[in-house]
Amino acid sequence: MTPFGALTGRALTTGHGTENDFILVPDPDGELRLDAADVVAACDRHAGLGADGLIRVVRSAALPEGATALAEDPTAEWFMDYRNSDGSVAEMCGNGVRVFVHYLRERGLVELPAGGGVVVGTRAGARRVTFDGERYTVEMGTWAMPGGAEAVAAGYDVVVRVPGLDGPRGGLRVTMPNPHTVVALPDEGELAAAVLTGEPAYEPVPPLGTNLELVVPLGEDEGDGEPVGRVRMRVLERGVGETRSCGTGTCAAALAVRAWAGPGAPDTWRVLVPGGEVTVRVLGETVTLTGPAALTADVTLLG
Amino acid sequence: MTPFGALTGRALTTGHGTENDFILVPDPDGELRLDAADVVAACDRHAGLGADGLIRVVRSAALPEGATALAEDPTAEWFMDYRNSDGSVAEMCGNGVRVFVHYLRERGLVELPAGGGVVVGTRAGARRVTFDGERYTVEMGTWAMPGGAEAVAAGYDVVVRVPGLDGPRGGLRVTMPNPHTVVALPDEGELAAAVLTGEPAYEPVPPLGTNLELVVPLGEDEGDGEPVGRVRMRVLERGVGETRSCGTGTCAAALAVRAWAGPGAPDTWRVLVPGGEVTVRVLGETVTLTGPAALTADVTLLG
Repeated sequence: MTPFGALTGRALTTGHGTENDFILVPDPDGELRLDAADVVAACDRHAGLGADGLIRVVRSAALPEGATALAEDPTAEWFMDYRNSDGSVAEMCGNGVRVFVHYLRERGLVELPAGGGVVVGTRAGARRVTFDGERYTVEMGTWAMPGGAEAVAAGYDVVVRVPGLDGPRGGLRVTMPNPHTVVALPDEGELAAAVLTGEPAYEPVPPLGTNLELVVPLGEDEGDGEPVGRVRMRVLERGVGETRSCGTGTCAAALAVRAWAGPGAPDTWRVLVPGGEVTVRVLGETVTLTGPAALTADVTLLG
Repeated sequence: MTPFGALTGRALTTGHGTENDFILVPDPDGELRLDAADVVAACDRHAGLGADGLIRVVRSAALPEGATALAEDPTAEWFMDYRNSDGSVAEMCGNGVRVFVHYLRERGLVELPAGGGVVVGTRAGARRVTFDGERYTVEMGTWAMPGGAEAVAAGYDVVVRVPGLDGPRGGLRVTMPNPHTVVALPDEGELAAAVLTGEPAYEPVPPLGTNLELVVPLGEDEGDGEPVGRVRMRVLERGVGETRSCGTGTCAAALAVRAWAGPGAPDTWRVLVPGGEVTVRVLGETVTLTGPAALTADVTLLG
């Protein structure tokens, strides 16, 4: 009745970052054989624990993929072995890595005082995560706008039709490096009216599919001596559906709104998602993502 | 970050019946004060454990509502204190009571061998649940068709428009005693095409709202010496949305299809829901519901 395979009877923990939720599976020495079917069963929201993904907590030295991370940074002791809820392997997850480091810190597997940082291994390489005493900041890597300066000048390089919204809308493509299309809406009424259970239409059709971010720019505040932009968004994740939060999606949203705002726009953006709030900082060609992480429960799956 | 109140740190268990899922909270002596906000937080599918409802496992003698059940049947030692995921109190839950009794049996709180039965307390009174070694059968109480013989003869007493389906459809009202409207569809293609994220329109408008069951009759098999009807269904629960299963909804579906089939129709119906399969038996004015129950995980919420 509960086909959790090798996950049955293990001590697991659940957690979330802006309501993007995960199952953490401690396996320091890499002894666990994780079948896709077990991941699917554990992530099932009715017959399992329910989660957007599963993270095996394993020493980088204990698995082949960890060698690359250790070569980049020999301090990357712990590796985030991330699986999507469909059982497939993923390279990185911006919300998941915060929860992963929060777990390492809470369980005493790393020393991470307020103001400190730690490097962890992922399939996208070694990533530094810092802790300010409350929230975690992760390097999200290099961004790009495949439409270039021409798309930014025009304001869009894709035409998008979204169920629930009248007429075609302009979308700006951003890669993080996964593909995103960001569409600005004039107000929160339109944001609420969009029907993200339906399938948007794109022209041209994105060859690898795309995540879709619907955003409403909310102006700028004065932060700690610097202007801070604010944006509210909803996100439709490629192959998943609407989610409460998407790490790379919040980065794409901030980058698009910043591009539309033109020269002198803030580099720091507060992004409000259905599951909470994160901060995106643009550092030239790269971005960082700052947000909360929480552990929800200690769990043992029954056989 | 994890506002589970009095539920934090307690030993809980999760389980499901045909993927209608529940959090079981052992509180034999009725010492726990359950706030609606704690129930909502624990049932949240991203920031909590995620569940359709929460069941406090408490001795009938330990709470005022238990007195009625004990007066009906003094053997009703355990009471199912059922809360919806919005924190409100509910009288009964056909799938939940199976999971409740499975928990009592698995944890040694009742003696329930294969072929035996046990009486439990609910806000709808004392209910007898039997166990055949694999599945649990619960008395679901008295049913009615408010449109009477006239509605059965016509085949419908409500006109329903369902998003995704062309034109108006006839619906038959059934009370269990909660309100249901059952609509027959010609094939599984139409069943799949119905968009249950949208809002169906009813004429006349049901004053208390209604659950909606879309059903495809699948004919009859020979069971153990008696004919057994089969029906596939999807269900839209009043105030909840589409669910994987609904106990009273499966009863309503079987009763409507049996009425449409006319005299000589089977009294026993296998009902296929998205979350599995249950069996409904019509015993004159009452029905029983038979189905599986599973425990998923032992859980401790973190503070």
